[in-house]
Amino acid sequence: MKNTDTAKSAAVLLIGNELLSGRTQDANLAHIATRLKEKGIRLMQARVIPDHPETIISVINELRQTHDYLFTTGGIGPTHDDITADCVAQAFGVDLPLHTEAKRLLLDYFQARDIEPNDDRMRMARIPEGATLIDNPVSIAPGFKMQNVFVMAGVPRIMQAMLDAVLPQLVSGAVQRSDTVVCDLGEGTVAAALRELQERFPAVDIGSYPGRVDNNSRLSLVITSTDDKLLEQVRVLIEQMVERLGGQVYSAPV
Amino acid sequence: MKNTDTAKSAAVLLIGNELLSGRTQDANLAHIATRLKEKGIRLMQARVIPDHPETIISVINELRQTHDYLFTTGGIGPTHDDITADCVAQAFGVDLPLHTEAKRLLLDYFQARDIEPNDDRMRMARIPEGATLIDNPVSIAPGFKMQNVFVMAGVPRIMQAMLDAVLPQLVSGAVQRSDTVVCDLGEGTVAAALRELQERFPAVDIGSYPGRVDNNSRLSLVITSTDDKLLEQVRVLIEQMVERLGGQVYSAPV
Repeated sequence: MKNTDTAKSAAVLLIGNELLSGRTQDANLAHIATRLKEKGIRLMQARVIPDHPETIISVINELRQTHDYLFTTGGIGPTHDDITADCVAQAFGVDLPLHTEAKRLLLDYFQARDIEPNDDRMRMARIPEGATLIDNPVSIAPGFKMQNVFVMAGVPRIMQAMLDAVLPQLVSGAVQRSDTVVCDLGEGTVAAALRELQERFPAVDIGSYPGRVDNNSRLSLVITSTDDKLLEQVRVLIEQMVERLGGQVYSAPV
Repeated sequence: MKNTDTAKSAAVLLIGNELLSGRTQDANLAHIATRLKEKGIRLMQARVIPDHPETIISVINELRQTHDYLFTTGGIGPTHDDITADCVAQAFGVDLPLHTEAKRLLLDYFQARDIEPNDDRMRMARIPEGATLIDNPVSIAPGFKMQNVFVMAGVPRIMQAMLDAVLPQLVSGAVQRSDTVVCDLGEGTVAAALRELQERFPAVDIGSYPGRVDNNSRLSLVITSTDDKLLEQVRVLIEQMVERLGGQVYSAPV
């Protein structure tokens, strides 16, 4: 999984006390990971941190400097615990003024719905100086892109819509495709042969994931590569290995 | 959420390419978070990293030095991509010999099931010098505790059993309890009053989480504190605030 090709690297930063208290099961990381993979961008790490300004600022500054792209989720609503925009502005050392376009979007949206545009609601129009807006077709309050940092909502359907808006702006890389061989062998049975295959094909990443399907033990052998022919070659070799070791190959779950 | 009390701090490290490719939705963080909260231990951050030795070693060394406890999940099986024990040994600068008790446990388990104890299976008995075992009642191969680092399996039901074994060994702190007021107001409506309450009661953490129940917008206002009387006081004030602002309070989901 080392980023040895020319593809862009990315990190994800999930912000929110609720993720570290067990209250909320994050649903954003797997979605972002899947979409970045489709785009050929290498997700190298993710972090989960609380609504704590110093922590947010320092982690943003670390991750934006060590990755081509940084995606954050959470903390851009109107309440006191929504501090991501403030922290991004501080991380970049810029002001956080009301953004003309964001302000217009919010005022139009509130007027059409007879909602009072109070100070707290208008906080959502504060955008770091120099950032561009990320559309929010769900609930209008925009995310924003500040250099290589993409600041998105925490609510999954809003985050997903924002990511849809962002993806076309990113530089694609060679896409890593995956294929899975599912079998009924134990990990200890396949380990030696699998290790040999991994050593023989370093351009392919082979992962071994035990699990259960309909209460039967099933082992998923996942092959990942940017080279489709190699992927196919290794898949066939793994299927042959399973049969040689007395196992059965099952069709992979969709 | 700042750890300003005397409670122990913790970090969680989720290890595995599958978590960064979108293949696997992590289910371990929320579980560990919940159990640590019950124990009064403050979970300060989580990281998700790939099966990449240098990364694993450096992140383990960073997090074990900056937190009282570090919990890792993943990478302790028999296959080539299971490298967590090797990385922990390297992080601590110790050897990784076959552990007498772990070896006996595995041999007994394999013999009883007529499984061949091959080299790969016996890799699961390699434990960093100086570590103690963590019981695995599900599939026998143990986790281990190396100083303040707790190395657990990635498969959720095994990880959960290991955490059960580990929790009694940890130093409890003042437990932060949470209470939730669910209402039908928008975040922008409650924001000003909520901000005032948060400023008035700094010993309480107030979080605001919009969501939907049966296709209706619902706002969950979550109050967290180590002081039960204060928790109750702020809950009543938040309920009064909701009514004053024309909203309705709903019973919180269990």
